[in-house]
Amino acid sequence: MSKEKVVLAYSGGLDTSVEIAWLKNAGYDVIACCIDVGEEKDLNQIQQKGKEVGAIGSVVIDAQQEFAEEYCLIALQAHTYYEGEYPLVSALSRPLIAKKLVEVAKQYNATTIAHGCTGKGNDQVRFETEIHALAPELKIEDPIRDQHMSREMEIEYAKENSIPIPISKESPYSIDENLWGRANECGVLEDPWATAPEDAYERTNALDNTPDIPAYLEISFEKGVPVSIDGEEYQLHDLIKYVNKIAGQHGIGRIDHVENRLIGIKSREIYECPGAEVLLKAHKDLEDLTTTKDLAHFKPIIEKEITDTIYNALWYTPLFDSLRAFLVESQKEVNGTVRVKLFKGNVICEGRQSKNSLYDLNLATYTAADSFDQESAAGFIKLYSLPSTVHAQVQNKQHMPQMQDLK
Amino acid sequence: MSKEKVVLAYSGGLDTSVEIAWLKNAGYDVIACCIDVGEEKDLNQIQQKGKEVGAIGSVVIDAQQEFAEEYCLIALQAHTYYEGEYPLVSALSRPLIAKKLVEVAKQYNATTIAHGCTGKGNDQVRFETEIHALAPELKIEDPIRDQHMSREMEIEYAKENSIPIPISKESPYSIDENLWGRANECGVLEDPWATAPEDAYERTNALDNTPDIPAYLEISFEKGVPVSIDGEEYQLHDLIKYVNKIAGQHGIGRIDHVENRLIGIKSREIYECPGAEVLLKAHKDLEDLTTTKDLAHFKPIIEKEITDTIYNALWYTPLFDSLRAFLVESQKEVNGTVRVKLFKGNVICEGRQSKNSLYDLNLATYTAADSFDQESAAGFIKLYSLPSTVHAQVQNKQHMPQMQDLK
Amino acid sequence: MSKEKVVLAYSGGLDTSVEIAWLKNAGYDVIACCIDVGEEKDLNQIQQKGKEVGAIGSVVIDAQQEFAEEYCLIALQAHTYYEGEYPLVSALSRPLIAKKLVEVAKQYNATTIAHGCTGKGNDQVRFETEIHALAPELKIEDPIRDQHMSREMEIEYAKENSIPIPISKESPYSIDENLWGRANECGVLEDPWATAPEDAYERTNALDNTPDIPAYLEISFEKGVPVSIDGEEYQLHDLIKYVNKIAGQHGIGRIDHVENRLIGIKSREIYECPGAEVLLKAHKDLEDLTTTKDLAHFKPIIEKEITDTIYNALWYTPLFDSLRAFLVESQKEVNGTVRVKLFKGNVICEGRQSKNSLYDLNLATYTAADSFDQESAAGFIKLYSLPSTVHAQVQNKQHMPQMQDLK
Amino acid sequence: MSKEKVVLAYSGGLDTSVEIAWLKNAGYDVIACCIDVGEEKDLNQIQQKGKEVGAIGSVVIDAQQEFAEEYCLIALQAHTYYEGEYPLVSALSRPLIAKKLVEVAKQYNATTIAHGCTGKGNDQVRFETEIHALAPELKIEDPIRDQHMSREMEIEYAKENSIPIPISKESPYSIDENLWGRANECGVLEDPWATAPEDAYERTNALDNTPDIPAYLEISFEKGVPVSIDGEEYQLHDLIKYVNKIAGQHGIGRIDHVENRLIGIKSREIYECPGAEVLLKAHKDLEDLTTTKDLAHFKPIIEKEITDTIYNALWYTPLFDSLRAFLVESQKEVNGTVRVKLFKGNVICEGRQSKNSLYDLNLATYTAADSFDQESAAGFIKLYSLPSTVHAQVQNKQHMPQMQDLK
Repeated sequence: MSKEKVVLAYSGGLDTSVEIAWLKNAGYDVIACCIDVGEEKDLNQIQQKGKEVGAIGSVVIDAQQEFAEEYCLIALQAHTYYEGEYPLVSALSRPLIAKKLVEVAKQYNATTIAHGCTGKGNDQVRFETEIHALAPELKIEDPIRDQHMSREMEIEYAKENSIPIPISKESPYSIDENLWGRANECGVLEDPWATAPEDAYERTNALDNTPDIPAYLEISFEKGVPVSIDGEEYQLHDLIKYVNKIAGQHGIGRIDHVENRLIGIKSREIYECPGAEVLLKAHKDLEDLTTTKDLAHFKPIIEKEITDTIYNALWYTPLFDSLRAFLVESQKEVNGTVRVKLFKGNVICEGRQSKNSLYDLNLATYTAADSFDQESAAGFIKLYSLPSTVHAQVQNKQHMPQMQDLK
Repeated sequence: MSKEKVVLAYSGGLDTSVEIAWLKNAGYDVIACCIDVGEEKDLNQIQQKGKEVGAIGSVVIDAQQEFAEEYCLIALQAHTYYEGEYPLVSALSRPLIAKKLVEVAKQYNATTIAHGCTGKGNDQVRFETEIHALAPELKIEDPIRDQHMSREMEIEYAKENSIPIPISKESPYSIDENLWGRANECGVLEDPWATAPEDAYERTNALDNTPDIPAYLEISFEKGVPVSIDGEEYQLHDLIKYVNKIAGQHGIGRIDHVENRLIGIKSREIYECPGAEVLLKAHKDLEDLTTTKDLAHFKPIIEKEITDTIYNALWYTPLFDSLRAFLVESQKEVNGTVRVKLFKGNVICEGRQSKNSLYDLNLATYTAADSFDQESAAGFIKLYSLPSTVHAQVQNKQHMPQMQDLK
Repeated sequence: MSKEKVVLAYSGGLDTSVEIAWLKNAGYDVIACCIDVGEEKDLNQIQQKGKEVGAIGSVVIDAQQEFAEEYCLIALQAHTYYEGEYPLVSALSRPLIAKKLVEVAKQYNATTIAHGCTGKGNDQVRFETEIHALAPELKIEDPIRDQHMSREMEIEYAKENSIPIPISKESPYSIDENLWGRANECGVLEDPWATAPEDAYERTNALDNTPDIPAYLEISFEKGVPVSIDGEEYQLHDLIKYVNKIAGQHGIGRIDHVENRLIGIKSREIYECPGAEVLLKAHKDLEDLTTTKDLAHFKPIIEKEITDTIYNALWYTPLFDSLRAFLVESQKEVNGTVRVKLFKGNVICEGRQSKNSLYDLNLATYTAADSFDQESAAGFIKLYSLPSTVHAQVQNKQHMPQMQDLK
Repeated sequence: MSKEKVVLAYSGGLDTSVEIAWLKNAGYDVIACCIDVGEEKDLNQIQQKGKEVGAIGSVVIDAQQEFAEEYCLIALQAHTYYEGEYPLVSALSRPLIAKKLVEVAKQYNATTIAHGCTGKGNDQVRFETEIHALAPELKIEDPIRDQHMSREMEIEYAKENSIPIPISKESPYSIDENLWGRANECGVLEDPWATAPEDAYERTNALDNTPDIPAYLEISFEKGVPVSIDGEEYQLHDLIKYVNKIAGQHGIGRIDHVENRLIGIKSREIYECPGAEVLLKAHKDLEDLTTTKDLAHFKPIIEKEITDTIYNALWYTPLFDSLRAFLVESQKEVNGTVRVKLFKGNVICEGRQSKNSLYDLNLATYTAADSFDQESAAGFIKLYSLPSTVHAQVQNKQHMPQMQDLK
């Protein structure tokens, strides 16, 4: 009788290598599956290692383009600053990774998906919720969490199962990263009064080490999608990487945030999102120019809901589909170019133009608005202030002693 | 028979000096009234000038403390970034000025209040709406707008009525400022593609001219009110001025925004809010540490409504009273200290501590949360993901061909 | 030289017949245009009368089907109860009428559209805003409002211009109606303490006169669209009429509401929406069965915004397009049948079923949820209550006297 | 050594009587505690029974007045219709019961609180969350859930421990009730297509059995609190009971709802809230008359959040305190009288009056609004429609072929 198959989200590191052995010992045929969402991993080497430590299959997937076009783009257009502070990082890649794992599981007739998340974080909730939203029939294994494996136990287990043990010293941090940003927690960061040490950062220069000459970018958008920089067209994932690099040099995108996790506790996190920061500011600035007031004032409600929906692992839900339909529709007129200055940690939008500009010196302000300042303004004010005026009249009437009050 | 009295919002400038003459010629006794909300005007000189150009009374009011404690504080605690971009500036002082004008009108038995706003801006709406919300029986005059007076006409009128004409060249900008910030529009700024020239800024250094050594401040809050810096206590208006100065040196608080006015058109504005920017970031950071997740996630709805309510001149309304009641209650546990670094245009919150901290290594994360990672997390995830799982099951069931669909 | 052409929204009544004469006298060639949105007018007769009183062209349009499918359907799916009280009536037909008027204007090369709204109501704002959202270049005339014509003046003007004067006594009410409902204001209704008299109602029986036997309907929906009743398929406009009739017999859908108009004042209105009331309850009941909790809890935010957007004449805006995209997406799984009982003014949903039901005895409650009650529930509760628990611990700690408070 | 003490939420029924025995056998000293929130229990008999089945202390508390004034009143003023359908019932009493249990626990130096909720419902979450929000140090026991006791096991256990077994046949329903309403689930109700049988209802007459003569009530409010009916003053809990009785006779307040539980599953519930239904409609109607438009349009956001916060067991949180502060402030002008007609299941508000009425024929509509219809309306419309007009102009400009597009 054939064994059950399990697809393991595989990173090539110690944790998930030990999991291959554990799952194999538990009776599974293991398919290791490594998905690159922008860490720029050496996929060949990871594929090779997966096989060496016991997987019967080892699959690697470069998902960077899909991640940029289907996931990062939503975060960009929806200005998904969680708790008003940081662009989603890990929460954004989880639904794509879950989808890829399910696809591989179906392809291999696997019954089970395994991951290596700890029991205190958001990621376990996200993986399991998103996998079951796509494939409710699959089982899920998380040996690290469910076997309470400490690092010492993992090393012991690795030795027993001929798994190579990394010789480098373990990082004091717990890091997750992708095209859209880099998240860092644990270690000294756990004291929210302590300044984050410089080695907590990797994608961004310290302000002391940034260039003394600003960089300028002209970023052009079509229907809310950034398509070119300084006149040169890029695919979205390449464009993000390009902006990440320049913005990182200028020290842009460091965030230090005490955050409410999905699982009810606060944690202190260090994020670096240089490219995201620049693109988000440019996109918002262009919306300010091209979007009508009513839409501009309601969209933040949608943005907040999209943000929380992604953070809370509800990507594959009818709610998210409905929110996305709103978002896509809202981008139709977000066309144009924003000129940004990158300097000493600052992203400064210095100019913006658009064929859809609703700010148009000749057309809007004067042709249409020309006659509004005199009688129109007075009439507008009279009606606009009417409710406050009537309210004040009723209030005053009540306080006159001679008035006979109705019941 | 005695003349009707009018209280004029008086700045000492050409516009409102001409208005004194016009109102006098129209048969009014004019009481000039100058209210200082943080421009640090020479009140004695303005009072003197009011009389010289024809007012029968000239009143000056230093309202800085009241402005800080009753108005700026709301903006701080409610994070009132209009359209997500800039802390309210002019909109914040208008209700206080309206209140003072009404008080003076009652004291002098005036029938009328006059102001000098143009017909295209928000301020005419704000003054008239807020005055009528307090005193619906008062008439309002705005000769500049209603007589369509151009600058040339004003100068002519000034000459005819012996009003001194300023010899300095007219600024190309239209500026309004107070403790909380400085707003600048018109002139070259009207082209949204043009970079704002350096002379558009006054309170902040250009990044090129900022110190190469950061400043550090430890700002302490009690119930959401900033009460001391680096251990030294300040009254709120002095504290704001102190932070304005340091933050301005470090180039903090420049904002370049295409904004939707109350009156339906877009305009491009340059703001400088150095102190506000620092205090807002510090306050938010402390809330992140001390506020429960549910409150932290709902408060932005209140914040947005407060912002729009102030911007839209609805300060003296039952809605605003209700929103403020929420806000005050939400601040009870916002106690503690935030350490901020001011450097090259950046405000960086490096550390925060509080007796109300809900992030507490010993108490929160471990004592209470210690046992949560194993069975609790698994149980939580099972129920948390149940709706998505059931939804997926129902979806899958439908797509099985052998199922007989219910109607 | 040819005259300018004007398209007049023509009802066949005195007001708009007088307007034909007035516009003709003002030098226009008048095209009368009557649009039926469910009043079931005698279109031939109106067309004839338009010509007789002086229009050079007379156009009649039966827009009932389009009104049902493009406008009423939105109101149904978005549960557009204005101020929580009544389904939109007049506000719903205005954008369609505006669109038809603009189409006719373009067809005839007219420069102007005319209507006959008074100066106190919402309709003048709606017509003018919606016409200009579609055709900003058209002029708008409203002679009744702008010439301050009283009824007496209209009769005089009619006599002078050979316009037949209706012999029936003028109704004390001001009424507007369409497929979706009937709105009634003015007269005795202006006293909000007075009971609305029976003659204020037309589409609904008084409860004393309703049948003593309930009616039962099984209403089936596909993607949120009601498609059949008791197994018989209807086009939407016919379905609405059918339900209007039965529900009206049973006294359903009377609403007595003190409402805030777009133009800042309160008015008291009597509405009758028998069919809308039934369809709205059935649709909501089916959504309760088929919609996931997260979507069900967020959709009301969209519903409120759609309601206010329609009420405020913003149908032809990017905001509305975006809201509608959300709405359409949200309806994908609203399939199934609801059994309603209509009796003595009540609509009672007694049963509901769906192939998309997320309430499924066999599947949802037991198979998926079976194991949740023991360990899962306990784990869920532990994490769910963690924030409240930690908050209480921190509060308690503070009140212990021996604690040395951090600043 | 003394035993640990446990306070048990005691109803006098089989479940909680068995729990007394179980807790005693587990080594606890048991204090039975029965809290009346409007079931009008025979408290003496329950107190007696608690002792007889083994409790060392037996406490009974008539909490009806406190429940009305501190809990039902919030539900009334906040219009807490969960999912737009039913006024909160069970969710409303849980925080009060939790508070009373904690008070008794502190009084007796108990270490533990016990309850008898099942593992599938909302109540276990509510009790445990709300107890820990008040007293995080207390342990919680739920033997029925944690020992997986079926009814047969309970009867066996009762026999072994000399607990009297009720001779009446067990109800097919699971019922919870209080002053504000009655909730019923389980049994035949679990099929959402089945009509709820008549015996599912207790507080309301079937429509066939209601009087043929309407009842009329004039309900007067002060600051949003109902204080008198037909001129006679009542304490709030007596007033609610009085309205419950009359409204129940007229068949008012039956609700049949498929609801999303806190714990992710849908359930079908039958509610009866006759008095609540009447008071809620009257209160809303009075708000429509007395509340300014801006407050009236924002309050529903607060109402929805209060509703969900109560439903989700977050009464004792800073969020709830802040929401309540808003609510209390919003009620200051909700003074006046509403005349309601109760007839055949319908609550009809026929008239309303208030000294705070913002609808005032003499004052509001005419004095203040008199002059608005002509120039004011035209000016208002011009500015109001400006954004749509400008948007249309920009759209049209783009579609002209000769236009040279900006980038």
